[in-house]
Amino acid sequence: MVTDPESAPKPAQGSASEKVVISVDAMGGDHGPAAVVAGIADSLTQHPRMHVILHGDEATIRPLLERHADLYPRITLRHADRVVTMEDKPAQVMRHGQGTSMWSAIDAVKDGEASVAVSCGNTGALMAVSMIRLRKLPGVNRPAIACLWPSRNPGGFNLMLDVGADVKAEADDLLQYATMGASYARNGLGLKRPRVGLLNVGTEEHKGRAELKEAHERMGPIAQAGDFDYVGFVEGGDLPSARVDVIVTDGFTGNVALKTGEGTAKLIADFLREAFGAGLMSKFAALLALNSLKRLQKRIDPRRVNGGVFLGLNGTVVKSHGAADATGVSAAISLAYQLAQVRFIERLAARVASAERAGQDALQTGSGLSGSGGSPTE
Amino acid sequence: MVTDPESAPKPAQGSASEKVVISVDAMGGDHGPAAVVAGIADSLTQHPRMHVILHGDEATIRPLLERHADLYPRITLRHADRVVTMEDKPAQVMRHGQGTSMWSAIDAVKDGEASVAVSCGNTGALMAVSMIRLRKLPGVNRPAIACLWPSRNPGGFNLMLDVGADVKAEADDLLQYATMGASYARNGLGLKRPRVGLLNVGTEEHKGRAELKEAHERMGPIAQAGDFDYVGFVEGGDLPSARVDVIVTDGFTGNVALKTGEGTAKLIADFLREAFGAGLMSKFAALLALNSLKRLQKRIDPRRVNGGVFLGLNGTVVKSHGAADATGVSAAISLAYQLAQVRFIERLAARVASAERAGQDALQTGSGLSGSGGSPTE
Repeated sequence: MVTDPESAPKPAQGSASEKVVISVDAMGGDHGPAAVVAGIADSLTQHPRMHVILHGDEATIRPLLERHADLYPRITLRHADRVVTMEDKPAQVMRHGQGTSMWSAIDAVKDGEASVAVSCGNTGALMAVSMIRLRKLPGVNRPAIACLWPSRNPGGFNLMLDVGADVKAEADDLLQYATMGASYARNGLGLKRPRVGLLNVGTEEHKGRAELKEAHERMGPIAQAGDFDYVGFVEGGDLPSARVDVIVTDGFTGNVALKTGEGTAKLIADFLREAFGAGLMSKFAALLALNSLKRLQKRIDPRRVNGGVFLGLNGTVVKSHGAADATGVSAAISLAYQLAQVRFIERLAARVASAERAGQDALQTGSGLSGSGGSPTE
Repeated sequence: MVTDPESAPKPAQGSASEKVVISVDAMGGDHGPAAVVAGIADSLTQHPRMHVILHGDEATIRPLLERHADLYPRITLRHADRVVTMEDKPAQVMRHGQGTSMWSAIDAVKDGEASVAVSCGNTGALMAVSMIRLRKLPGVNRPAIACLWPSRNPGGFNLMLDVGADVKAEADDLLQYATMGASYARNGLGLKRPRVGLLNVGTEEHKGRAELKEAHERMGPIAQAGDFDYVGFVEGGDLPSARVDVIVTDGFTGNVALKTGEGTAKLIADFLREAFGAGLMSKFAALLALNSLKRLQKRIDPRRVNGGVFLGLNGTVVKSHGAADATGVSAAISLAYQLAQVRFIERLAARVASAERAGQDALQTGSGLSGSGGSPTE
């Protein structure tokens, strides 16, 4: 078996002086281009090799850039007349989206100018534009969106996919999500051998939907080719669990789970605020408890882990939350930088191809548990 | 239109002196019969008209009852040799479950001795035994399990179904869940005109799975017959929302959402404890904040709302949490008492029949928006 570059500790892309180019859509977020430019400035300061191609309305963005004259040589501004709004339907944007900053940001990756694209815009439209411009990776039927989830693991986060690219997933899709999620966990979260689980309504083998049982039975050779540990079925309560790193599910269930988790956290935060707001003694206690609460907030701050990643396309796209402020945008761009630096897309493509071979071998030998699938090239 | 007894303020069952009989499975919970007996004692004290038929191992239970000699005349102990364990498979229990305390508890409802059954045992087995002994209500294809969810509504709780009776639901099932959930909200939560939403990945009409779009289009006459307001699609973040009372979804999604919400709440509680545990000042603050935290805990304490309700059978079954202590068991039994007192099962059956007529009328007239379905008899 050849050495697996995915686990190599050094960056894979060229020399230390080679620049890493990220394509950023300046428009479309709730806080507008100001938050995006501030986030870029923060991220550029952290990563000296990073360069940014910035897409959007020149008249709006130019004045914002003037505050960051020192970083100016590392930003290329590319004017786009139009903006995709939160109300635009994906199908419309697919047909008439040319000339928007989002389209332009994706095209910079398509044309090889940049390694990864980042946008705060409309998720559905961003996925639609990414699909028609970048096209699906060979062998991938359904691309997926992966997001991070606060967890009890040492790194502080687990990864879940799909959280909304498609409302449906067959067994083949779930197996590909496992491969892609594991590759992302290795390259984005630095986990050497990720543990992957299939989200179900129970951990017993006989439970759940037909496509889950099929994926469960066929996971053996896929896990071997993808260099991950398959831990079996996990439940909703395991999303923050330390016994799994990557949670695989269809985009309907994943989206509901993601929003349910966010909604629950928000409800508890509101209740906490109300509880601490009642009575003078409580207010005093809250003041004293401020440091504790700040530590807690830092652990579950969604801005620190901002960035849903589109997997399964010929290019990497990071979706920043629409409500992201400068800190959130900076986190999304830093994630894009990390993925660009390790040439994530090449590694992912190799893993998907290798998993496909392993799956076919297993089908030919008629066993879901045998078949090595050969050494992955990445 | 006749007066709707569902909204009548007084109890519907007989005179004020008539007894209300609840059938309780003493075995199967994590804390054993002691917690169940203590919960029964608490609930009997609250409800002077309540009587209990208690099923389980006589040698174990008899000594526990001796502590409550005053309540003894209101408890009938019925010996059962065997117990359904948490590991037993539903299919096995269906075939060989006779003679267990769970089977005996359900049969007391089947035979008309008791109005509602309560068990802390294995959910899958309880649903299986309930299905074969009580049978499905005429017209119901898939029974559902409904649970309560902490919310921003004045009552403090929303209701979600199905949370795990079946991994699949067609449009017809979702429409029935809406009818049954609304009836439960009226009779169990005291909401005069419940607001019902369909759980989806977005609130736009074009989003989601085919069965959701179909149920959405056909909801008009069902809402009219069921005397509820249909608010359209809701998202995971709306589960605790004040804009909806009843959330309808398939049992797979509902189960994942329920466990995700519980898991998130538990994660935050753990993080909070750690945050308050660090440093002397924090400990002092936590001490001062204790009252605030207690108030919060009371708002989200699952023991106060313990009880998943099985809907769509010829009899009502309340599933208490396996980990419930005496307070939790008491809450589940009080819920059973409330449903028994208003003759919930008769009202529910009338609503389901009325919704079925309304649905058929709508199909015949070819419109999902017309058709009154006649006045419900309950």
